[in-house]
Amino acid sequence: MNFNNKLIENAVDEISKLPGIGKRSALRVVLHLLRQPKIQTQGLSQSLVELREKVQYCQNCFNISETPICGICRSHSRDSSMICVVESIEDVMAIENTAQFKGHYHVLGGVVSPLLGIVIDDLTIVQLVERVNKQNIKELIFALSSTVEADSTAYYIYKQLQKNELKISTLARGIPLGDELEYADELTLGRSIIARIPFEKSFEIH
Amino acid sequence: MNFNNKLIENAVDEISKLPGIGKRSALRVVLHLLRQPKIQTQGLSQSLVELREKVQYCQNCFNISETPICGICRSHSRDSSMICVVESIEDVMAIENTAQFKGHYHVLGGVVSPLLGIVIDDLTIVQLVERVNKQNIKELIFALSSTVEADSTAYYIYKQLQKNELKISTLARGIPLGDELEYADELTLGRSIIARIPFEKSFEIH
Repeated sequence: MNFNNKLIENAVDEISKLPGIGKRSALRVVLHLLRQPKIQTQGLSQSLVELREKVQYCQNCFNISETPICGICRSHSRDSSMICVVESIEDVMAIENTAQFKGHYHVLGGVVSPLLGIVIDDLTIVQLVERVNKQNIKELIFALSSTVEADSTAYYIYKQLQKNELKISTLARGIPLGDELEYADELTLGRSIIARIPFEKSFEIH
Repeated sequence: MNFNNKLIENAVDEISKLPGIGKRSALRVVLHLLRQPKIQTQGLSQSLVELREKVQYCQNCFNISETPICGICRSHSRDSSMICVVESIEDVMAIENTAQFKGHYHVLGGVVSPLLGIVIDDLTIVQLVERVNKQNIKELIFALSSTVEADSTAYYIYKQLQKNELKISTLARGIPLGDELEYADELTLGRSIIARIPFEKSFEIH
């Protein structure tokens, strides 16, 4: 596509570097901004620069933060003896939105993956082990993806921490709430038969 | 969605004001920028501000421009006696990309639409009439949408300029090239039977 205008071309190029936005959508964004008051573009631009300049990672849990220690780690109303181990800050947001967890987090930054070239040292596993050893941690909850890579990463961490007197659990796997049985995949269905729960316990979930 | 972070919330809010981007995609963009080097965010932000500050509208044809008169209007290799009347700058880009037109443009800024509250004074019709009267214009080509509103806008302009010795044409309507006949809509098919062209002329198009 030829825009006959260097400024538009630049802006379209920069916008189309973003995930999920092609040249055509980028042009739509550009023409939209041109139609709106200047203040909107200034606001957008400033929020992006501020975001990138000021966001840092919590030195304790590696969640995003505006301060060296994040709001969750600083909060007095949260249980600091429980750590929920997640892959990414997206996962922290997802779990926070359920309002079902009131402990602390630890963001690994991914899982070990030979295919993607992610090794143990790329993740914050050493820091997690250190936290467990130094802080008064009673329970660790693995809230990782249901993949081979995530499972083996969890197993590696489990092995590192086994000697501690620590309760280690992982997320329940099974049929998602609201799903119809006939559409569940075989593996999940099979596993959830094996891992069936006492009927009285199912009331707690609903 | 709760992001637990004011900077992320601000950025997501600003990004999700853009067309075609919801909160979830905006968050993806934000987390992507956080993972990339700072220079990418700076480049994006700067290109947007520059775009909004420096882009202006050509005083002659109302196309976007970096100078008071746009590159197309200034070009010596283009035929200034032909004006292609379009609704928007997107249409200029679309026609430029065909490389089939070497005249000048006139961007109306929309079409008259009582439903959307767009009246004649919102458009650049007065300026178009002035151009035709003052400049040496020989042909006017309407390249507008195929809608009732566009048709009546074209008709209004046609009435204003009828007294001039001016060739006025409009885009050919018919079956799009490459389309299968059975999928063409009835109206287009019917019209293209009525407006059939001599077989020899069809060679010029292909």
